[in-house]
Amino acid sequence: MSLYVMKFGGSSVGDTERMLRVARRIAAKQDEGHRCVVVVSAMGDTTDDLIDQAKLLHSQPPAREMDMLMTTGEQISVALLSIALHGLGRSAVSYTGWQAGFRTDGTHGKARIQEIEPRRVLEALEKDRIVIVAGFQGMTEEGEITTLGRGGSDTTAVALAAAIRADVCEIYTDVNGVYSTDPRIVKTARKLNEISYDEMLELANLGAAVLHPRAVEYAKRYQVKLVVRSSFNETEGTVVKEEASMEQGVAVSGIAYDKNVARISILGAADTPGVLAKVFGKLAEEGINVDIIVQSGVQDGEADFSFTVALDEMQRSMDVIREIRAELPYREVTSEDHLVKISIVGAGMVSHPGVAAEMFDVISRLGISIKMVSTSEIKVSCVVEAGRLNEIIQALHTAYGLDTSEKAFVGGPQDRR
Amino acid sequence: MSLYVMKFGGSSVGDTERMLRVARRIAAKQDEGHRCVVVVSAMGDTTDDLIDQAKLLHSQPPAREMDMLMTTGEQISVALLSIALHGLGRSAVSYTGWQAGFRTDGTHGKARIQEIEPRRVLEALEKDRIVIVAGFQGMTEEGEITTLGRGGSDTTAVALAAAIRADVCEIYTDVNGVYSTDPRIVKTARKLNEISYDEMLELANLGAAVLHPRAVEYAKRYQVKLVVRSSFNETEGTVVKEEASMEQGVAVSGIAYDKNVARISILGAADTPGVLAKVFGKLAEEGINVDIIVQSGVQDGEADFSFTVALDEMQRSMDVIREIRAELPYREVTSEDHLVKISIVGAGMVSHPGVAAEMFDVISRLGISIKMVSTSEIKVSCVVEAGRLNEIIQALHTAYGLDTSEKAFVGGPQDRR
Repeated sequence: MSLYVMKFGGSSVGDTERMLRVARRIAAKQDEGHRCVVVVSAMGDTTDDLIDQAKLLHSQPPAREMDMLMTTGEQISVALLSIALHGLGRSAVSYTGWQAGFRTDGTHGKARIQEIEPRRVLEALEKDRIVIVAGFQGMTEEGEITTLGRGGSDTTAVALAAAIRADVCEIYTDVNGVYSTDPRIVKTARKLNEISYDEMLELANLGAAVLHPRAVEYAKRYQVKLVVRSSFNETEGTVVKEEASMEQGVAVSGIAYDKNVARISILGAADTPGVLAKVFGKLAEEGINVDIIVQSGVQDGEADFSFTVALDEMQRSMDVIREIRAELPYREVTSEDHLVKISIVGAGMVSHPGVAAEMFDVISRLGISIKMVSTSEIKVSCVVEAGRLNEIIQALHTAYGLDTSEKAFVGGPQDRR
Repeated sequence: MSLYVMKFGGSSVGDTERMLRVARRIAAKQDEGHRCVVVVSAMGDTTDDLIDQAKLLHSQPPAREMDMLMTTGEQISVALLSIALHGLGRSAVSYTGWQAGFRTDGTHGKARIQEIEPRRVLEALEKDRIVIVAGFQGMTEEGEITTLGRGGSDTTAVALAAAIRADVCEIYTDVNGVYSTDPRIVKTARKLNEISYDEMLELANLGAAVLHPRAVEYAKRYQVKLVVRSSFNETEGTVVKEEASMEQGVAVSGIAYDKNVARISILGAADTPGVLAKVFGKLAEEGINVDIIVQSGVQDGEADFSFTVALDEMQRSMDVIREIRAELPYREVTSEDHLVKISIVGAGMVSHPGVAAEMFDVISRLGISIKMVSTSEIKVSCVVEAGRLNEIIQALHTAYGLDTSEKAFVGGPQDRR
């Protein structure tokens, strides 16, 4: 008998029919002799509908009141799922975030979990009840209702699994697991059986939107064994844990890409100490995340450097750089969009020299020039022009021996709340 | 400066446009220099929609989970109304029932308020905030979410008004106030300026669905001054308080009717002690409310008696009586529907002899026979055949001098949650 935390996203409980399917799935798990704690998101479009209504009343609704509003979405889900389980003759009980013991700080809209006091959850489990907990929400010490922000329901599930020492935390989604790359681009994408937290983090951060990075970080910190699997079929999913066994000795586990990339180049900057600190300090102050930074050589006391930001922050970044022009004289600032970042990820890279070189080789043999490069212990990223993304990914996938004959299942749009 | 509790029902906040109108109304009250606590119901059909969804999953959903589900309706309302007020530049804060300090017993679906600890409401008022409280809901000592059942939002408003010692509790609804009778039947129905708690109770219980009797009882117990008024216009409403001044010396303030009536007659029952106790004890055991009871004379050791029950409980009442036939032998039991109960209500009756006689006279002059009569200090009720209801009410209304030339405003269907 194991203790499971099962998390179902909004698309898995999008209507009462799907809700019933989820209830049957939970009942089946119980019939196998396991104890179940279930975390659910708001049904389908509920959250968007609520936001739309709020926007009709106020263009910038206060975050505290938005939290009051949005948390009703998950409360509806847990109540209905519990009712569905009762309909199947099961003993179930639903809890809001605060009832389940989620204490957070007071940052409405993106609160951080401070403590979980899962007394009621454990007591209900003792009574052989299926426990349904509203994802994405908590309460401050003062009794204010908060939401955890993006990835909130994944984080709820992982944090709860850690707090009640669950054996497994299953994240049910609309794909069969974590793939070696986007199956919509590469038909021969391989579903991974296992992956390490670090690899998953790289893939998650790189836009493989199966699992929110915040939840993966949480899982890594508390060593929660994660399983990503489909809510629509019985296929075994992908296990995410500390050290994944090297599958067939491959160096590269997956290939990710990110289209939300823009490059900004500062040309002819004065080569004085503190120039970089000034630029990136100012951008950080404005809440702009910088990803890859490349500085080319210095010539005649002038330095060129470029960096990437999210596409939708490109214009704001340019404004910031122009504002501080007087403080850090430079000759010219340029921006470039229509780019994509492609990354190969694999814990096995360390023991496989030449992995990066092979990537550059594959791309250059396609006649495509690499604009920027960034590396970490388990990742190599290249920024290239966006136009031939699919071709590059397909070539890399084949080159690193990731192709499989298995057909990938790809469902509807993901709910990443 | 006065402290107001303002309660708005579901039809008053049925969509964002109406929500905005309510927000403007509250802002105007604040501009007059008053402090405002607002109680809101769920928007329009929200509650019914949630019930429909639950019924798709379980024919008899557990009450605890239904409370989890239903309370989201009011939470959405309070959040949106607060957002609307912020949109008008006001400082407002919304609270769920439990945040506002409503402690109830654990009878899910129809919990009773045990205590109100309005600390947060008072603190927010101190900060000049408009406080919006979710009607109809509370929490048990164990942290379970409950609903107060029918009339819950009215009761929330009145109980909160008592707890924070508000000067007035305004119940905003879709009619201009309490009328001398149903304006849909009598075009010359008079809007009452004042009415006593007791009169209001009789009218409320008799189906004049402007205010739930439970809320009126609460108001009477804690001497909360109520005002029933329209949320759609500025007309002064009806004040409900302890002793209403006798309006123009009239004996009768209002005429009510109740179509949900059936009569059951037990004929030829043994005239032994305890027969009545047995019948009505058994009906009470089954949760059937009996209204009027009439026993006619005893003949040859046999007694006839009849009583009224709600129409939808007629069949069940008959079954109960038949079940205990052996214990209380009787000759025959009959039932009769297609009836109506018409009542005249007035605190002035005591000092106006002959009021009842006049009622019997008016009805008999229409050639209609009275089937049952019941009286209290401030009420006379007659049960008659339903067919000529409107005619009778119109005749009584004129006979007691209640006609006015003012035209009554009648809005859409009421929300009586």
